[in-house]
Amino acid sequence: MFYFTIEILGTISFAISGVLTAMNKRLDPFGIFIVAFVTALGGGTLRDLLLGVGPVTWLVDTTYMYVIMISVVFAVAFREKIKYLRKSLFLFDTLGIGLYTVVGVEKGVAAGLTPVMCVALGTITASFGGVIRDILCNEIPIIFRKEVYATACIAGGVFYFVLKAFPIEKDLVFALPILVVIVIRLLAVRFKLSLPTVYRSEKDPN
Amino acid sequence: MFYFTIEILGTISFAISGVLTAMNKRLDPFGIFIVAFVTALGGGTLRDLLLGVGPVTWLVDTTYMYVIMISVVFAVAFREKIKYLRKSLFLFDTLGIGLYTVVGVEKGVAAGLTPVMCVALGTITASFGGVIRDILCNEIPIIFRKEVYATACIAGGVFYFVLKAFPIEKDLVFALPILVVIVIRLLAVRFKLSLPTVYRSEKDPN
Amino acid sequence: MFYFTIEILGTISFAISGVLTAMNKRLDPFGIFIVAFVTALGGGTLRDLLLGVGPVTWLVDTTYMYVIMISVVFAVAFREKIKYLRKSLFLFDTLGIGLYTVVGVEKGVAAGLTPVMCVALGTITASFGGVIRDILCNEIPIIFRKEVYATACIAGGVFYFVLKAFPIEKDLVFALPILVVIVIRLLAVRFKLSLPTVYRSEKDPN
Repeated sequence: MFYFTIEILGTISFAISGVLTAMNKRLDPFGIFIVAFVTALGGGTLRDLLLGVGPVTWLVDTTYMYVIMISVVFAVAFREKIKYLRKSLFLFDTLGIGLYTVVGVEKGVAAGLTPVMCVALGTITASFGGVIRDILCNEIPIIFRKEVYATACIAGGVFYFVLKAFPIEKDLVFALPILVVIVIRLLAVRFKLSLPTVYRSEKDPN
Repeated sequence: MFYFTIEILGTISFAISGVLTAMNKRLDPFGIFIVAFVTALGGGTLRDLLLGVGPVTWLVDTTYMYVIMISVVFAVAFREKIKYLRKSLFLFDTLGIGLYTVVGVEKGVAAGLTPVMCVALGTITASFGGVIRDILCNEIPIIFRKEVYATACIAGGVFYFVLKAFPIEKDLVFALPILVVIVIRLLAVRFKLSLPTVYRSEKDPN
Repeated sequence: MFYFTIEILGTISFAISGVLTAMNKRLDPFGIFIVAFVTALGGGTLRDLLLGVGPVTWLVDTTYMYVIMISVVFAVAFREKIKYLRKSLFLFDTLGIGLYTVVGVEKGVAAGLTPVMCVALGTITASFGGVIRDILCNEIPIIFRKEVYATACIAGGVFYFVLKAFPIEKDLVFALPILVVIVIRLLAVRFKLSLPTVYRSEKDPN
């Protein structure tokens, strides 16, 4: 029940982030809804497709669709006020990323994958919704350019397997990595950290 | 047989719409073919992937590939004349949307999904080919911006379940929603209706 | 073992091509890694999804992930020198395309598909990694615009079925089409061949 609440908060904040991006691009209500939807559920959908698990979760459990519909209506109706919620939304978003990461990691474990691949699945679950959102809005994905976002997911995923190597209670193995993702992301935003970009010093037609 | 004819007409008109978009972007013949292909079959492919049904239909039934190949050759050869066909193409396209919607809805019903999700699947089937076409051509999808297109699909899908609640003949439950999609789309284009865009009055870095 | 070596060389060269594209777009290290990854494995992933085969290969065999990680570190570290490797990389790339094509064709054969669809699968395997790379980098896919690339794959795939119609040794049916892809691609680049673009002579709002 506790995790379900986090998951719903995460879905809401991801959906609202989609609404804000879509409104900046002046999409119509249908476009706004679709962008909100893929932002919230695109990462988990890609994970399920790669695992060959079908039908994907949101087709079977209509709750997600309703939560996103309500989030979209709310975000559009209060679009002028939403900036006052920015801190709460960022918090929900960060909670969501942490939870999505560990959920993805555990789906990989359940499928018998190696730890490296489980961490990859967790990162995909938490971050590819935003990637698809940016592609639909004709932007280079923001997490490829300037956020310590995937890095936090990877760290959380690695920490999950570190904990698993010790005789630690299962609930803590689930909860502590979420905390790691959250702390790294909060610190990164607090100190405006981002990964450096790398490019070549000379123009080269290759 | 009747529905098969509509499906082929829909495939042809979707493929030709892909050819026209691709030629505007000055793609080479391979690019034109791929864009035509995903426009015609991308929606149904995404639907099958989400349902976890594989291999996807067009891999198993080569007819679609041949129909698209012929449509592409035709559209490229007669590219200067195709504007005279614009009304016929629009009609085929509208028929195709209607049929694809109801086909998608019924696939959802067969998979035991809730009505909301069946309507979503129908809309995806009918409209995501165009979404992928626009992404491949580096445009924000047109149906997110200015067409009453998905709206018509959603209305048709809802009407399907309204009819199903009554003791109506199965053929009519299939055919009447197609008609609803067609009528809404024709009216929308006739009266230049489109969904309003929503955006915030002030620039906001969020 | 021999084919495994080619496959790894192909993976390396595809990954490095992703790194170069991503650095031109000034992505951060995470973005560079993801673009390298999808360039190398995107085509095979799409093929597996369309076939309904899951989990996809690279989730189960972690080798690919490690090869790509090392390639990315190498390419980023030696980014100023990589132009001196251009010829070797082009050769690896061409080998990779040839092999990926025939691997894709044979997966289609194993799934009982028609020859046309097997050729399509082979072409998807060899060329859609680059398509996804360009979409992530917000470009119209280069193979839709100016390279005889897919054409070489298609020719190789067709040649596979020509050979199969004769009583030829299985190893040759596998190896000779790879050679065909390589020769066509080398000739095309040597003589700067590309498919002509087609467009309409007049502006037309259709």
